[in-house]
Amino acid sequence: MIPIISVVGRSDSGKTTLIEKLIPELNRRGYRVGTIKHDVHGFDIDHPGKDSWRHAKAGAELVLISSPTKAAMVKRVDAELTLDEIAGRYVSDVDLVLTEGFKRESKPKIEIRRGAEEPLSSPDEVLFVVAEKQAVSEDDVPILALADISGMADLIERHIKQAPTGVTVSLEVDGRQVPLNAIMQRVITNTTIGLIESLKGVGSPKSVRISIVPRGGRR
Amino acid sequence: MIPIISVVGRSDSGKTTLIEKLIPELNRRGYRVGTIKHDVHGFDIDHPGKDSWRHAKAGAELVLISSPTKAAMVKRVDAELTLDEIAGRYVSDVDLVLTEGFKRESKPKIEIRRGAEEPLSSPDEVLFVVAEKQAVSEDDVPILALADISGMADLIERHIKQAPTGVTVSLEVDGRQVPLNAIMQRVITNTTIGLIESLKGVGSPKSVRISIVPRGGRR
Repeated sequence: MIPIISVVGRSDSGKTTLIEKLIPELNRRGYRVGTIKHDVHGFDIDHPGKDSWRHAKAGAELVLISSPTKAAMVKRVDAELTLDEIAGRYVSDVDLVLTEGFKRESKPKIEIRRGAEEPLSSPDEVLFVVAEKQAVSEDDVPILALADISGMADLIERHIKQAPTGVTVSLEVDGRQVPLNAIMQRVITNTTIGLIESLKGVGSPKSVRISIVPRGGRR
Repeated sequence: MIPIISVVGRSDSGKTTLIEKLIPELNRRGYRVGTIKHDVHGFDIDHPGKDSWRHAKAGAELVLISSPTKAAMVKRVDAELTLDEIAGRYVSDVDLVLTEGFKRESKPKIEIRRGAEEPLSSPDEVLFVVAEKQAVSEDDVPILALADISGMADLIERHIKQAPTGVTVSLEVDGRQVPLNAIMQRVITNTTIGLIESLKGVGSPKSVRISIVPRGGRR
């Protein structure tokens, strides 16, 4: 799985600004970054009157826009997707994902603290804390100063490099994620890679996505 | 593959309006519809100042927004994706996709003609033509009146039901679609479905998506 790190903090603590500063520093170091933002209030990503907004308004489940430089999608969901569902379905071609929010999910966290407030995350989840001034906390979690973007990027880079190598397998059956233990992950990987390598001209794949969907008519 | 039908016509011929009328009629008949719009000029799906626009502006490759009712994504691409690439990667949970534009791709077409202009598509690609008045063309392509939404939905429904049953398999290796002949589609389907059915509690799947991606660091 592509590493996911969640930037958490109370509202107006500066999560967006921090992400905005981290991305160019990580880009400069050669990492392609994706972001996932949590929006509890719902959102309108398109403008009233625009064609794709009209499609959605008319009842489309899914609206996609494609241009030579961008692809965009809006999809109705029945319940909020988990980070792993989002990553398994939609994230590709990046080295790292930063999320804004998602403090209740169990991804490694960067926690912004602007005062003496209670921590949001348990210390074992926190990569580092961002605060007004650099310090070391009681529980050995590094506390970096708000301006120390380069120090933060160092810790993020170290985390990415420490992440276990190998592959992560995600499996969706009839629209639902199926949890897989390590053995099943290995069986699926070996079977799939073996099959793919038997195809002419494919060589030895690093990433594989297979989609098998019924065609012709209603489910 | 989920059936894809392209609504084509010159600019200002009423493609968006037609799609807007077809979607509720197809919804009423029980079909969930997705749409794909072609945008040659590029587009800004988000508003300046909004958080995810700021992420993209800062250099994110991929920006996702998740809410309890919707998921949205904007991704940079190096070249415009084909309809099959878009459908293979991002389309799920719908029974039919209508595209606005994409006249150069070889999907079945609904062609809007507002006058005596030259046809845009060759007759064998056209499901039906939409024009001011109902008629039958020389080459047996039905011509439906602009207001005959129900007649159009009948023809779309017939097309969906005629579509070959079974499954379509799409395979992406290292970010690229790999063309598969019928035999390889069958081998991949049988191997994958067999593997999945051996998992406890999964039963007999109708659709399967597997993603195997390297974890930990840069590609």
